[in-house]
Amino acid sequence: MMITLLTDFGSRDSFVAQMKGVILSLQPKAVIVDITHEVPPFGIRDAAFVLQSVYRRFPKGTIHVVVVDPGVGGKRRPLLVINRQGRFLAPDNGVLSYIYHDHPSSQVYQLTAEKYRLKTYSATFDGRDLFAPVAAWLSKGIAPSRLGKKITDFVSFPVPDPKQLRDGSLQGQVIHIDRFGNLITNIMRQDLTPWISDGKTAVIKIKGKTIDGLKLFYSEAAAGELAAVINSDDHLEIFCDQGNARSILDAAPDEPVVVR
Amino acid sequence: MMITLLTDFGSRDSFVAQMKGVILSLQPKAVIVDITHEVPPFGIRDAAFVLQSVYRRFPKGTIHVVVVDPGVGGKRRPLLVINRQGRFLAPDNGVLSYIYHDHPSSQVYQLTAEKYRLKTYSATFDGRDLFAPVAAWLSKGIAPSRLGKKITDFVSFPVPDPKQLRDGSLQGQVIHIDRFGNLITNIMRQDLTPWISDGKTAVIKIKGKTIDGLKLFYSEAAAGELAAVINSDDHLEIFCDQGNARSILDAAPDEPVVVR
Amino acid sequence: MMITLLTDFGSRDSFVAQMKGVILSLQPKAVIVDITHEVPPFGIRDAAFVLQSVYRRFPKGTIHVVVVDPGVGGKRRPLLVINRQGRFLAPDNGVLSYIYHDHPSSQVYQLTAEKYRLKTYSATFDGRDLFAPVAAWLSKGIAPSRLGKKITDFVSFPVPDPKQLRDGSLQGQVIHIDRFGNLITNIMRQDLTPWISDGKTAVIKIKGKTIDGLKLFYSEAAAGELAAVINSDDHLEIFCDQGNARSILDAAPDEPVVVR
Repeated sequence: MMITLLTDFGSRDSFVAQMKGVILSLQPKAVIVDITHEVPPFGIRDAAFVLQSVYRRFPKGTIHVVVVDPGVGGKRRPLLVINRQGRFLAPDNGVLSYIYHDHPSSQVYQLTAEKYRLKTYSATFDGRDLFAPVAAWLSKGIAPSRLGKKITDFVSFPVPDPKQLRDGSLQGQVIHIDRFGNLITNIMRQDLTPWISDGKTAVIKIKGKTIDGLKLFYSEAAAGELAAVINSDDHLEIFCDQGNARSILDAAPDEPVVVR
Repeated sequence: MMITLLTDFGSRDSFVAQMKGVILSLQPKAVIVDITHEVPPFGIRDAAFVLQSVYRRFPKGTIHVVVVDPGVGGKRRPLLVINRQGRFLAPDNGVLSYIYHDHPSSQVYQLTAEKYRLKTYSATFDGRDLFAPVAAWLSKGIAPSRLGKKITDFVSFPVPDPKQLRDGSLQGQVIHIDRFGNLITNIMRQDLTPWISDGKTAVIKIKGKTIDGLKLFYSEAAAGELAAVINSDDHLEIFCDQGNARSILDAAPDEPVVVR
Repeated sequence: MMITLLTDFGSRDSFVAQMKGVILSLQPKAVIVDITHEVPPFGIRDAAFVLQSVYRRFPKGTIHVVVVDPGVGGKRRPLLVINRQGRFLAPDNGVLSYIYHDHPSSQVYQLTAEKYRLKTYSATFDGRDLFAPVAAWLSKGIAPSRLGKKITDFVSFPVPDPKQLRDGSLQGQVIHIDRFGNLITNIMRQDLTPWISDGKTAVIKIKGKTIDGLKLFYSEAAAGELAAVINSDDHLEIFCDQGNARSILDAAPDEPVVVR
């Protein structure tokens, strides 16, 4: 019965509430949880990152509805993706790339059955007219095969992995910046094993600045100090305790980060 | 048991949560859905538009609580409005104008019964002290006649309709701008019948710019192109695919739009 | 089963949803209510104020989770505080100061039992790894004594009280500014008894401006007029009807306010 919503619809308009009204009309017992609706407009990669950071925290079988959908009404296909962790409803535009990456054996259905859409189906709001009612029907136990047909040629962007450089150092990149201005990179705890297990000091370079060593938690750094930590999702993260690393470094997503 | 909340209280303070605490204390089974709390402060017309865009999506009988209430504590009356679609609690300041327009046979009650207010009733927060407890009591099945008395002289602003001009063109106006910068007008699908059914190209003028024809969905337009679509609520909408029509046109609500 | 969340996590990332996923995985029947997640980053005093403004509105026994936690991972202790009004989970950094002030006989436990944390406990996200699961376990009826041990040396900042000046006037301060720009002070209805009961006009001074007398509600003031009211929580509040007192006065928290 659990359904999450992740969109770029913002909180000023009624888009999200329209989706909730549709879901609750079909499935009054739904427990609807907002992930966020503040993804930047058309921010497919942002939404993909936020989704991968959270979906494992929900009970298995939870229905995750992801609507960041600049191609709505066009040729991009609406999808249902099922794996052992959950069920995902989203447009076929790459927003589920991390899901495919984490679960290569996911089953992917193109949603073709018109009878599970709203009767007043419009061409510009699949969140309300297609994904919301399908989420409700799924929660009522409908078989995926009645909703559409399996496909294998879905859209997926490559999930960026850090690269080993010739001198033994590791180059990754910033993949997300959170509300605190923390820079989250694609360098994971296991990538740092050579540094952590050998007791070597990891030296981190970003935008010409050098950070010596990893902190275990934020307040271990001095206030205002630029520092690094392996965060609660096992990502290497650049932060500034009581400050804002994004502002200090004037950093943006894709910024290279090197560890040596 | 379903109760929606629509206010201008924002998300930084505890106003909305205070309302929810009051409702859930009286009615622990309430399913509370936020419409939005980001209506501009005192934005009665904004709230009225957002409400009309969403209320039909909820189950019949849903209780919609609308608190945009610059006159709280003064002479404006608190109302309960009932029609076949839902029940609406709001101050008598015009915020329900679309509801009266859509449902001319609505029953309108002035809420006079003090026993259904909080005992600690204050003069400045009817959302918490009056509308929230009344919503809870309504959801418990209390008869409207016990809450107040019927009135007919409620406040309603005229819902703007487009005008036929002498040369056969149609003049409407922008009535809402959404988070994507899309300009939503009061020109409806049925107003455009002469253009749609005859296969004539609708030529749309706004702020000196001309848009030729209607798209069926957003991504049918070129990226950055100013274009028009009949949106998912049957309103003529000016948009810029992957861009922001509001910024491009420097447009505001009430801006005239002409179709010919 | 009722659990509220109050954090500085914002609405763009998945932090809050991660907490909800953890709670709902352990306790699918939880009714989770957001207080706010827009407390300024590391805004312990703001969060403390927002909490005290709302907790009494919820049913007794409600579990309130407060995570504004700049010291996460360090020596600050995680706490459970219990009194006749509710149960509070928060870091030991003063964010519960008003709770201790209002309920001097609160029982305070340091949360030491590791078995009620997530198995994948990290050092930087106690909201998800410690407070969320403990909230779920509490709602399932676990005894506080199994979660930790009682302490008495918790951190509390002094709740600022207004001072009587030699000339009989009263000096307080702004303690919160809400989304409407209203300035909420620490001067309470009972502090104003000498003025209210004697029929004397309270003369209020702030930033060199003088306000004569108290309004009973906002719209009693002229539009744009700077005025004062005893608000719905019995605080003296400076407001500007249809305007923004914060902007007009260029005021900030801690600004002195004098009544004479």
